[in-house]
Amino acid sequence: MLSLLRSFLLRSSSISARMVSTNFTVKFYEFGDPLEVLKHDECPIPAIKEADSVLIKMLASPINPADINVIQGTYGFKPALPANAGLEGVGEIVDIGSGVQKLKKGDWVLAPGDAWGTWRQFGVANENELRVLSNKLELATACTLAVNPPTAYRMLKDFVHLRQGETVIQNGANSGVGQAVIQIARAMGLRSVNIIRDRPNVDELKQQLKDLGADYVVTEEELRLSSMKDIFKEVPLPKLALNCVGGKNCSDMMRYVANEGYVVTYGGMSKQPVTVSTSALIFKGIHLVGFWRTKWAKKNSGSTEDNKMYSDLENFALEGKLRSPMHTKHPLKQYKTAVKMSMEGYTSSKQILINE
Amino acid sequence: MLSLLRSFLLRSSSISARMVSTNFTVKFYEFGDPLEVLKHDECPIPAIKEADSVLIKMLASPINPADINVIQGTYGFKPALPANAGLEGVGEIVDIGSGVQKLKKGDWVLAPGDAWGTWRQFGVANENELRVLSNKLELATACTLAVNPPTAYRMLKDFVHLRQGETVIQNGANSGVGQAVIQIARAMGLRSVNIIRDRPNVDELKQQLKDLGADYVVTEEELRLSSMKDIFKEVPLPKLALNCVGGKNCSDMMRYVANEGYVVTYGGMSKQPVTVSTSALIFKGIHLVGFWRTKWAKKNSGSTEDNKMYSDLENFALEGKLRSPMHTKHPLKQYKTAVKMSMEGYTSSKQILINE
Repeated sequence: MLSLLRSFLLRSSSISARMVSTNFTVKFYEFGDPLEVLKHDECPIPAIKEADSVLIKMLASPINPADINVIQGTYGFKPALPANAGLEGVGEIVDIGSGVQKLKKGDWVLAPGDAWGTWRQFGVANENELRVLSNKLELATACTLAVNPPTAYRMLKDFVHLRQGETVIQNGANSGVGQAVIQIARAMGLRSVNIIRDRPNVDELKQQLKDLGADYVVTEEELRLSSMKDIFKEVPLPKLALNCVGGKNCSDMMRYVANEGYVVTYGGMSKQPVTVSTSALIFKGIHLVGFWRTKWAKKNSGSTEDNKMYSDLENFALEGKLRSPMHTKHPLKQYKTAVKMSMEGYTSSKQILINE
Repeated sequence: MLSLLRSFLLRSSSISARMVSTNFTVKFYEFGDPLEVLKHDECPIPAIKEADSVLIKMLASPINPADINVIQGTYGFKPALPANAGLEGVGEIVDIGSGVQKLKKGDWVLAPGDAWGTWRQFGVANENELRVLSNKLELATACTLAVNPPTAYRMLKDFVHLRQGETVIQNGANSGVGQAVIQIARAMGLRSVNIIRDRPNVDELKQQLKDLGADYVVTEEELRLSSMKDIFKEVPLPKLALNCVGGKNCSDMMRYVANEGYVVTYGGMSKQPVTVSTSALIFKGIHLVGFWRTKWAKKNSGSTEDNKMYSDLENFALEGKLRSPMHTKHPLKQYKTAVKMSMEGYTSSKQILINE
């Protein structure tokens, strides 16, 4: 099989002969600072051993905050060590086992979840673990479709029934999820109030988010001004608040949540806990809950609701309603530079590893 | 009508002639420190003006933390001033309007909610606002049946489905609600882990709560010891935590809540907010919510569920499964002493005003 595959790869115009004999893979052998513990190796291209497996050539993978937390050992699950890095990405099927029925060579697929490891050139997976994506999608959109947009989509759908014209408020609005929230909220007919940190060229970032569909963009300092009330003369108080920051900013945001509203936490960039007053819980009836994409996927993978979500998201993307997040591309082999940039503060750009 | 009533009252062995002409009523004319703003007046006994109204002679009323907060102006609603004090109590029907159908003289009734004002001798109410209670109940049980036991009952029922043998954890376990939680949990076949503040004679209080049906009673300091884990070798981690304290104690309690569990806040005795880690929300899936008896009653008063609850609670009380909270009785006219005692720290005794 391996010799057949090699001859296939040598014939394939999309893969150069130079890459055929190696499979560049980013790994970590211990948990810790990604800049220290991430290593790579170059081993042979894996063989298809099972009839219902396929060989995937990875095309592109983003670096998400969750990737960094997994490598640090601070995420909600710890993979067995040594582990392949990278939770998300899109690849192309370059070979298939004899029993494969649903996939064909050339298909684009989302990489399997969990500890499969997307920051590499090639990998083998069972066809049932893979979801086909249209190869008409922009590569940066396709490789970031499985984590951030579903997080945004589920949070907008699963906690409060928001009707057209109703409002969602969020902090960390320039994050990957934040950008997806802005666009999906707009596609759903909702209004969005978006909180970002002040920074050099903040007006430029505000304009970028408005170009995505944000109705209002305010800094954390502006959120504390009484002028915020003017916004809620124009749109209803939000029944839904999305929090990836925590600490004081989340408390400030919570003051504007409508009675009986939900505050959904999906990240904690400030490393501060979420704090809520007793009266907000009792008298305003505010609900504080969390959302974890990984857990939702484990429970619902392949369900009707899961398929509908991917179909909606793919359609939004093909119709131009869901654009790729702001991003910077790096060759896979320059992963260290990309990881370093992803860990710097105040970045609104997602770092994407390309397997060229 | 009034002269008829007076002749009735003069004949009644339970009401002395001395009290007939006046209606001692505790009021407040401004919000503030109860010890300063509470005043009383003695006005005529009110007349029945509507055919479906009744005259109630109040028998007993407790002093709840919510009463204090209403007088301070820090509660979830502010009555119009001047206001009659007291949210809860039991009275006896001493006269009825010509069109009254459901009530008769001698019936015990729960006083109407909100700003009716229970800390007084007599009051008029529409028969439809009143719920009859068995006069076989102990007076201290009857007059405290409408606020604390329903709070405990609803919190045990409405957030998590707890099966027999499962666990609830609570702080402020010696409060009125806390004592009801212990007893109703036991009546439902649940196990309870109860947190109290350390104090002189703490062992005596522990024993009192165990006598009510508490499975475990620990101090706030003991809650922070690793020996807590021994408890959860014997009973499952609680899916439900009830919080009336907030601050550090609530955070300590939350560490023992099972994945996907609910932390229900119904009070904030420490005056500190509730704080929760991002990982508890995202990875453990903890839900933080509030419960407010008043809001539940507004929404559900007279519903099948409301009637079932009162029936269950009354039966628990008649069967000896729900005893009156530990209490101290005061003549109504000594309300100032009673209010002062209710505001002192470390009291496990509910102050009850008796209309002798």
